[in-house]
Amino acid sequence: MKHITTLLSLAVALSAYCGKYTAYVNPSIGTGAVENSLSGNCYPGATVPFGMVQLSPDTQAAPDWDKASGYDYNDTHTCGFSHTRLSGTGACDLIDLLLMPSVDSSVWSALDHSKEKASPGYYSLELDGGILAELTATPRTGIHRYTYPKGCRQRLYIDLDHSAPKGSWDRRIIQSQLRVTGPQTIEGYRVMTGWAKLRRVYFHIELSRPMASCSLLSADRDYGRAAVANGNNLKAWVDFDPDGSDCVVVKVGLSTTSLANARANMAHEAPGWDFDGFVRRADAVWDGMLGRIEVKGDSTEMQKFYTALYHTMIQPNVISDINGEYTSTDYSTQKMPHGQQYYTTFSLWDTFRAAHPLYTIIAPEMDAAFVNSMLAHFDSYGYLPIWSLWGQDNYCMIGNHAIPVVADAVLKGIGGIDPERALRACVASATTVHPGSPFDVWEEYGYMPEDLQSQSVSITLEQSFDDWCVAQLASRLESDSVARHFAIRSRSFANLYDAGSGFFRGRTSDGRWVEPFDPLRYGANGGNPYTEGNAWQYLWYVPHDVPALIELLGGRRKFVDRLDAFFSLTESSGAKNDNASGFIGQYVHGNEPSHHVAYLYNYAGKPQKTQDLVHKICTELYNNSSSGYAGNDDCGEMSSWFVFSSMGFYPVNPVSGEYSIGSPLFDRVAIRLASGRTFEVRVHRKGCHGHRIKAMRLNGKAHLRYVLRHSDIMAGGVLDVYM
Amino acid sequence: MKHITTLLSLAVALSAYCGKYTAYVNPSIGTGAVENSLSGNCYPGATVPFGMVQLSPDTQAAPDWDKASGYDYNDTHTCGFSHTRLSGTGACDLIDLLLMPSVDSSVWSALDHSKEKASPGYYSLELDGGILAELTATPRTGIHRYTYPKGCRQRLYIDLDHSAPKGSWDRRIIQSQLRVTGPQTIEGYRVMTGWAKLRRVYFHIELSRPMASCSLLSADRDYGRAAVANGNNLKAWVDFDPDGSDCVVVKVGLSTTSLANARANMAHEAPGWDFDGFVRRADAVWDGMLGRIEVKGDSTEMQKFYTALYHTMIQPNVISDINGEYTSTDYSTQKMPHGQQYYTTFSLWDTFRAAHPLYTIIAPEMDAAFVNSMLAHFDSYGYLPIWSLWGQDNYCMIGNHAIPVVADAVLKGIGGIDPERALRACVASATTVHPGSPFDVWEEYGYMPEDLQSQSVSITLEQSFDDWCVAQLASRLESDSVARHFAIRSRSFANLYDAGSGFFRGRTSDGRWVEPFDPLRYGANGGNPYTEGNAWQYLWYVPHDVPALIELLGGRRKFVDRLDAFFSLTESSGAKNDNASGFIGQYVHGNEPSHHVAYLYNYAGKPQKTQDLVHKICTELYNNSSSGYAGNDDCGEMSSWFVFSSMGFYPVNPVSGEYSIGSPLFDRVAIRLASGRTFEVRVHRKGCHGHRIKAMRLNGKAHLRYVLRHSDIMAGGVLDVYM
Repeated sequence: MKHITTLLSLAVALSAYCGKYTAYVNPSIGTGAVENSLSGNCYPGATVPFGMVQLSPDTQAAPDWDKASGYDYNDTHTCGFSHTRLSGTGACDLIDLLLMPSVDSSVWSALDHSKEKASPGYYSLELDGGILAELTATPRTGIHRYTYPKGCRQRLYIDLDHSAPKGSWDRRIIQSQLRVTGPQTIEGYRVMTGWAKLRRVYFHIELSRPMASCSLLSADRDYGRAAVANGNNLKAWVDFDPDGSDCVVVKVGLSTTSLANARANMAHEAPGWDFDGFVRRADAVWDGMLGRIEVKGDSTEMQKFYTALYHTMIQPNVISDINGEYTSTDYSTQKMPHGQQYYTTFSLWDTFRAAHPLYTIIAPEMDAAFVNSMLAHFDSYGYLPIWSLWGQDNYCMIGNHAIPVVADAVLKGIGGIDPERALRACVASATTVHPGSPFDVWEEYGYMPEDLQSQSVSITLEQSFDDWCVAQLASRLESDSVARHFAIRSRSFANLYDAGSGFFRGRTSDGRWVEPFDPLRYGANGGNPYTEGNAWQYLWYVPHDVPALIELLGGRRKFVDRLDAFFSLTESSGAKNDNASGFIGQYVHGNEPSHHVAYLYNYAGKPQKTQDLVHKICTELYNNSSSGYAGNDDCGEMSSWFVFSSMGFYPVNPVSGEYSIGSPLFDRVAIRLASGRTFEVRVHRKGCHGHRIKAMRLNGKAHLRYVLRHSDIMAGGVLDVYM
Repeated sequence: MKHITTLLSLAVALSAYCGKYTAYVNPSIGTGAVENSLSGNCYPGATVPFGMVQLSPDTQAAPDWDKASGYDYNDTHTCGFSHTRLSGTGACDLIDLLLMPSVDSSVWSALDHSKEKASPGYYSLELDGGILAELTATPRTGIHRYTYPKGCRQRLYIDLDHSAPKGSWDRRIIQSQLRVTGPQTIEGYRVMTGWAKLRRVYFHIELSRPMASCSLLSADRDYGRAAVANGNNLKAWVDFDPDGSDCVVVKVGLSTTSLANARANMAHEAPGWDFDGFVRRADAVWDGMLGRIEVKGDSTEMQKFYTALYHTMIQPNVISDINGEYTSTDYSTQKMPHGQQYYTTFSLWDTFRAAHPLYTIIAPEMDAAFVNSMLAHFDSYGYLPIWSLWGQDNYCMIGNHAIPVVADAVLKGIGGIDPERALRACVASATTVHPGSPFDVWEEYGYMPEDLQSQSVSITLEQSFDDWCVAQLASRLESDSVARHFAIRSRSFANLYDAGSGFFRGRTSDGRWVEPFDPLRYGANGGNPYTEGNAWQYLWYVPHDVPALIELLGGRRKFVDRLDAFFSLTESSGAKNDNASGFIGQYVHGNEPSHHVAYLYNYAGKPQKTQDLVHKICTELYNNSSSGYAGNDDCGEMSSWFVFSSMGFYPVNPVSGEYSIGSPLFDRVAIRLASGRTFEVRVHRKGCHGHRIKAMRLNGKAHLRYVLRHSDIMAGGVLDVYM
């Protein structure tokens, strides 16, 4: 029933503003689990591609964990609209500056999905008392339009205290300010620490109509009509004269560096009061980005596709101002080189797998911007980010997966990146001891001993891959000794393979296997050799040398047997990790370590098994409801898997320049490249539901390997796939 | 015995570097209590006038409260030398970046006062193992010279974790970095919150010799030879090759805004490696500042005088960089107008009384700089600072005593201040509700009701004075309605006078007196109508209208009787406040509320009683030992009292443009004014120890009132005083 509601409300929304591609986006996908299924921790609110502002309703007083985007489709009430958030993460942060219109003193309203509309860059909700709240955004400005019912009070609540839970991640507001600077302007800032260690958020609010009054208050003080309040739990009530107009437009410009820049950002991006114009512009920007891939096929699948593609471009997020200034990792204000912007929200353990590879195809200019932002992060921090949140590393997850992103961009020849600086950054990130990366230990033992570095199996496997990436980059840049050193390190994974059990297993520093061993037992984020998974799920992570993995496992036949077992073994042992969901046997589509595994059959001569599984995952583990994802979307990574796989290929090794071919979901895919060329996948089906490939032709020539090269795509052309 | 030690070590120190006036400064005065006496919470280390750097030994792992400067003369060990601190405060903060040389792995050394030397801008201590550590400073650079004994290891410990106690004032290090940027350079930063809400301290360290090695570590991780470590409890061990030289010079440039500015500050202020030259320069700068007042008399009194004068110029502290950039109250980087610098450390509840009035006479250019910094603070914060610590308001104490400072500067015609901006700032600070200042309540009741605002008697008295200052400034600028409004408010003190008991007493919002009432009972900093004092001590705070106070108390004779009782009544009731010390009856010279009271006899025709008391306080409650002050020096306020009183006059009302005459301690005082003129006080004594004034002549004319006008001083001239 809820599915239907979602689609209905979507339909209404899209009648107002929709481009050719945005028409297919359903922002409520992934926003809430229904009936024992899963969600994606996405949100339905207004944002533009890679913007600083994510303006969306919050449905919790202090959102966290399974409500990490601030919104859960299953919640029944909202406390208003805050301006920043994460999409698809497992932990919550940001959630800055909540605004809520009201006709009385209530600051919560029922959330009725039948009164909710959402499309890219637009969100609206009819609130209690009949107030229509509409939201849109530019990159650094959130824009609200509130239409109050006639004859009612017209109030606006501003909550600068609202955030993810205080105390969690040592979260607290250190200082904040609310200041009435004119009859139609309010400014202020909030400095807080949390999952991101210390963020400064400056805001400049402009109102389309003068305030009749503004009262500042906090939990412990009523500031009355004071023009300014400084404190750490500030709120305000603004009243408008109801005789003036029914409608108020509220624009909120943000900056990480200063009030002056918050003002300048708004002045540049959002002059005037044409709310509908801002909505049209946001829709047009989205439509342009989404149109970089055109798919044709079943309309439900097209909704899934364009919503997934939309989710891949909600982040990374710009946090530099229009003049290029940003808050550096060291909390100083720095400026990007002319014409460049600084981006954050790099959930790299997730996004190095498919999201960044996707950007290298459809948005290479953005990939360059992301890589140059990572290199700026490296300049001040000393090594590349693990997980960059509002410009700060929160060290979430393991490995150093900025390395594959940076290396891949250079290896693929993406313009505007200094290759030598990239190599310096990668080498520093693979040699400088830092949390989760004791490289002195790594160099000494050739693996991470569990007694010296927990999550040792997962780190050993993933760091081996990162090391391979450094080697590839060094080799390309003719740094031969560096390349040799990291090539050796990249084979470290083999040191943890236990031929007896047939698994990668934890070892201690004395060389002994960690006992007891249970390949079904899950680890979480420390205290166990496996990260958010078990030995079965971490059996497959050697993307840079699948042949070596096949050999370790006893050859192709045994490899296929193990894969078959993996995809069918439903036993479990003890509690599963919270991130383990979307099961096919031990395969867990809800979390990233499994994401490449369906494609591994290709490497053992069993492409039809890959095709079967990929088709099954695309059609069964993604849907167009609020519980459309099999797990957290993880900043677009779950979505990127779908975008790739539904087009028919996937980057098993994201830095190899090759994609492994699966099973295209659409009749036709056209990737419009920055060069002006187009790469097409044309599917020729015999039966209605055929998903197994019988033959392929690339640019008219028979294509025998289940591999597509990056260079094939970028050159433009046609892959004909016969099902 | 300890007195003698101090003087001996001083004598040795001064043989090396001393100017005409610096020769009289004993930096160990006020650094530690001896035998039941009191201290001043001062420190003996190296600093220059109004500098950012205060480089001094720390004698506690986490200094606090009675060791608020980081140093206690009674402590027996030191853990090294940190670069920032407060002088004379009751609470501790700053204490950034500890360096400690060592010949082994020990990071504590015995502190032997016989091996300690100190003079303005210079400090040295022979540490365990025979290392000679010498310190000097420029405004933004700390400079160390370590001479290691031959044949020993040459090590340097860098502790970026060292601070005032974690947890106290919610203190914690949010993020920090240590980074080896070259063989002779280390950089980094520390962002922490504590008494000052969030401070950024960037540092650039240059070593005169290359490091043989540098190991980074923290409580939970050994970073080995990593070039960079990011964390919140970082330390480093640097080793030098002992075969190179015996000596290492270490320069540490600081900035509140960025590493680039920390580098630029050092490059500008401290190029080269001439440690002795830096010491000479610091001495010369101090000598120039101290020489603005020349006193002649007893050499012990001269030591007390010049040390006090020295202590008045240790703060306020510049926190802008040489290019004028600074961290604003809103944590953004701002820039002062060309040629101006930004100052902080405004302990205004203390320093509005005598320190700032002193600056208006001997350092008007600095007073203008302080006022313009307060006005910049006002611009971003919305009202003037209460207690500005590293640019942040910590709201320590009561009242809004930037108002008298700002108003006084304008009223005295100090150049470079925009009077209209000053008035705007004063009005905003006296009308905008903020912590401790519920002006809506103030306007409604005409006093602070204790049930609505604690410390109500003290706030009512002090805010009445602040309001009078606003009125004076408004009147000068012909804002007549503002002047009238604040003139009315300035009489609010009378609303708390209880004729029955003869005291200012707390009232509740229903108009009733707070019961029970005990005029001897102390309040602290909340929960009681009196702030760090009792009703006796707060009986006298009506500096702007002493005649009205005399009338309230029943006329001159009764006023004198009450003063006599105040200076003789030794009873007490319950615990005294920690800040109550230096008693003469109920008079407490150790804390500021009493500071003007000895001069009040002048207003009732009993100048000799003033003279007796002032002389007694100057000679008995100040001495030249480590326990030379009767209480905390409070950022130079206790010292300023001595400077004024020993010259023969004191600003009872610091904004009246008048000084009340006491009893000059010196035979001759010459104030060298910025105009080139000199104002002299010449004392003509009959007996050796006479301190009572028989007659006075100002510029040769009989001077009958015990009042000296600011304009008399600034015009230059001679006050002849006949004892």
